[in-house]
Amino acid sequence: MAQTPYKQLEQEWKRLHAFRGAMAILRWDAAVMMPRGSADVRGEQLAALETEYHSLVTAPRITRLLDRAQANTGGLEDWQISNLREMRRQRDFAIATPVALVSRLAKAASKAEAKWLHARETGKFEDFAPHLEEVVHLVRDKAQLLGQARNLAPYDALVDEFSPGLTSGEIDAMFKALARRLPGLIREALARQEQHPLLPIVGKFSAGKQRAMAVEIMKAVGFPFDRGRLDESEHPFTEGVPGDVRVTTRFDVTEPFSGMLGALHETGHAMYDVGLPAEYSDQPVGRDRGMALEESQSLLMEMIVCRSRGFVSYLKPLLEKHFGVSGPEWSEENLYAHLTRVKRGPIRVDADELTYTLHIQLRYELENQLLSGELAVRNLRDAWNSSMEQRLGVKPQNDLEGVLQDVHWAVGSFGYFPSYGLGAVMAAQFYEALREAVPEVETQIAHGDFGGVMGWLRENVHRHGARVTTQELLKLSTGKPLTATAALRYLEAKYLNNESVVGSAAA
Amino acid sequence: MAQTPYKQLEQEWKRLHAFRGAMAILRWDAAVMMPRGSADVRGEQLAALETEYHSLVTAPRITRLLDRAQANTGGLEDWQISNLREMRRQRDFAIATPVALVSRLAKAASKAEAKWLHARETGKFEDFAPHLEEVVHLVRDKAQLLGQARNLAPYDALVDEFSPGLTSGEIDAMFKALARRLPGLIREALARQEQHPLLPIVGKFSAGKQRAMAVEIMKAVGFPFDRGRLDESEHPFTEGVPGDVRVTTRFDVTEPFSGMLGALHETGHAMYDVGLPAEYSDQPVGRDRGMALEESQSLLMEMIVCRSRGFVSYLKPLLEKHFGVSGPEWSEENLYAHLTRVKRGPIRVDADELTYTLHIQLRYELENQLLSGELAVRNLRDAWNSSMEQRLGVKPQNDLEGVLQDVHWAVGSFGYFPSYGLGAVMAAQFYEALREAVPEVETQIAHGDFGGVMGWLRENVHRHGARVTTQELLKLSTGKPLTATAALRYLEAKYLNNESVVGSAAA
Repeated sequence: MAQTPYKQLEQEWKRLHAFRGAMAILRWDAAVMMPRGSADVRGEQLAALETEYHSLVTAPRITRLLDRAQANTGGLEDWQISNLREMRRQRDFAIATPVALVSRLAKAASKAEAKWLHARETGKFEDFAPHLEEVVHLVRDKAQLLGQARNLAPYDALVDEFSPGLTSGEIDAMFKALARRLPGLIREALARQEQHPLLPIVGKFSAGKQRAMAVEIMKAVGFPFDRGRLDESEHPFTEGVPGDVRVTTRFDVTEPFSGMLGALHETGHAMYDVGLPAEYSDQPVGRDRGMALEESQSLLMEMIVCRSRGFVSYLKPLLEKHFGVSGPEWSEENLYAHLTRVKRGPIRVDADELTYTLHIQLRYELENQLLSGELAVRNLRDAWNSSMEQRLGVKPQNDLEGVLQDVHWAVGSFGYFPSYGLGAVMAAQFYEALREAVPEVETQIAHGDFGGVMGWLRENVHRHGARVTTQELLKLSTGKPLTATAALRYLEAKYLNNESVVGSAAA
Repeated sequence: MAQTPYKQLEQEWKRLHAFRGAMAILRWDAAVMMPRGSADVRGEQLAALETEYHSLVTAPRITRLLDRAQANTGGLEDWQISNLREMRRQRDFAIATPVALVSRLAKAASKAEAKWLHARETGKFEDFAPHLEEVVHLVRDKAQLLGQARNLAPYDALVDEFSPGLTSGEIDAMFKALARRLPGLIREALARQEQHPLLPIVGKFSAGKQRAMAVEIMKAVGFPFDRGRLDESEHPFTEGVPGDVRVTTRFDVTEPFSGMLGALHETGHAMYDVGLPAEYSDQPVGRDRGMALEESQSLLMEMIVCRSRGFVSYLKPLLEKHFGVSGPEWSEENLYAHLTRVKRGPIRVDADELTYTLHIQLRYELENQLLSGELAVRNLRDAWNSSMEQRLGVKPQNDLEGVLQDVHWAVGSFGYFPSYGLGAVMAAQFYEALREAVPEVETQIAHGDFGGVMGWLRENVHRHGARVTTQELLKLSTGKPLTATAALRYLEAKYLNNESVVGSAAA
């Protein structure tokens, strides 16, 4: 008997999944293992696979099968109906972005990225601006086409690719709520902080020892080393597929925190991928629910779990064991103070929890204005600097500290930045629900037991895959739609009221 | 203006080349980097890419373009005409082996390989035999189909895949000539050897130091580390494409030779790949001329160059530098005696230069008989053991030392073994011509200068790619068709007359 249209589509996507996995490993290899001179060869390989992937998704046969399957969904389970919706979504995105445009954008982005790197050497935004202009132009075309196809405003269509089901309206409301409270909160936190001076932490912390400690923590969290790896790369990232998930970090030998936090940020991503529904692992509905959700999982791990008092209790003996350190600067109080230090700075990736979302909001607003044409690329630096000063009271000393700090726009990733802000806010929303369900969670963490955190996340977030929209998932797991109030409650409690289970007290 | 059919074919193969390169990196990753538990995921990825590759090569469009291009080759250069011939060859192979058969063979081979591994634990050929039987059955079908398509005898069609243009007739003649002289030569060499006892070499040689020495030698040979890597794996191999070539070896910490020789064997393959014609790097005519040629390059490096007195002169100070060794056992004479030790043994991969081709001949004859039906799989062990005793005077003590030692048949690689014998013989044939053209070659090697060897090989072997057949290439580079006489002259001079430029005398 012939297979049903739905079953045939599952077969097609099984193949597409294998292609995606192959591309993921090739990208991982390019960043971690590939000899430097081989970038041209790899570029050809990835382009060939991507083109093939695009033509497989947009084949007329897929559209015919989708139409037939959707005309008669009787007999399909909920998951399968969601799977059809996600298949259609992928096909719509692919059809809406013709190969010619994708290829022109890829070339412009590749050139702009090289010019961005060059401009970071000369320090001059002017050397980059004309190339960014071309990228903006092409992204505008893409947003237009995607918007028509998905029946969304152009910018919302870009956001939808990364954070399915979220709109500018919801993102605006979130940033507005944060911007209303954060500046005051930052001022108060800084005032409090001044009364508790830090003891400096200095020394030499070898990459090998840092790696051993990171691996020990990752194992405690549940990272599957039989189906995953930890390596080093210039920027931390997670690649691969569930079943072969690869995270990287970068170790700084002058301090023992950033490499570990990078590894655990990526472990947050990895655990999400590992917890996705195994039954649908090679289907669209079995994938993660976009970058906002992904960032919520990595930020929950890096910012909330790893900068909690419970975690510091767990970390202290690990630091002693791996680095043989001792002394008052290694006390839990001082370690916690280091990990929760608030500082107004110009650089996003160095920002603390309190100031982070303000950095994101700035980019969100500027990229909206760039795409709408309200802001010209030639005026971007001035707009950036004045917005930074007004928002954070920080004046970038040069373009490296300002408009040249992120690669995202150069490579055409517009609509991506909101994911970071959404991720931070959703992380707090999840954690609030998690603490209610598992009140002993920080005591567990203090004992190196991450079962409470990971069990709740798996049950309430990971296992849904892409079955529901981002908003629906939030409602299912926290009972509420997206809201900034949990994040603000969390930050106030942590940075003003010093509320967090103290590991040693709980022990 | 529309592109010519030939140019369109070049575009198609450019894409196929990118696919091949992607698969090569995925295989490398599977052997070197992949977490152990991820084999299932990787299997799906490789199967998807291989199926796609097969369907791209066998697409009706390719056949139409080939027909049109071959109907009018006016205006094409010689290289391009050879390229058309190689394209047709690849297409013929693909068409002749339908996906269903390839897939059945892949499954049977995958199962047989697992059973082979299992039988190596139990030590019983019986546990493996029925699964080998199924593979033999399917390979017989494949040979039949390939033979019809290529107008060759079935076994020759298998050989042709690995050693294009060579037939059983030529291989028979080669083995016959070797078998006539080698047994006597081995006896005489062993008698000579008894008069010069070895000083044992013992110690602990860390993998890190061995690696550093191997890298230093590979750099001297010209291995491009900006477009290549050296890693460790269970069995040494070379993967990748020119532009990103990856070799592996395995270091044994109880002795300093095998890891280095493994790395340099693979460097021989790599240098061939690196020296292929850059202009055609993404075309069939720009590829290596099959496995016999590949093995000639690796064996020339490992057996001839690295076991020469010139190389020992170069190696001695490297051993002193990297391992801090000294004493009479590290003299050039004793090192040379270690590297050229002759020993009748049951295991192919441990065999020396003199006995090696006899191991291969045994396999060549047995696989012929298996495929023709003259020998039943259930009688294979007895046939193996009696042939081994008769040929080498060695009686395998068990199946691990005998019929279970190689993976080749389990995975369906029939017709592959002759490549090793052909490679050894061709290596000597090349080296004879090379020494005539570059008489100072061993003096150069004694000084760590591999320019003479590599320059000649690049000019006379590598740069031809797949432009001519194996036999034509031999004639172009050595003036003669395939012959065993150069190999026999080389072995007699080295093992009986002790002829080889002595490095220290030459310095």
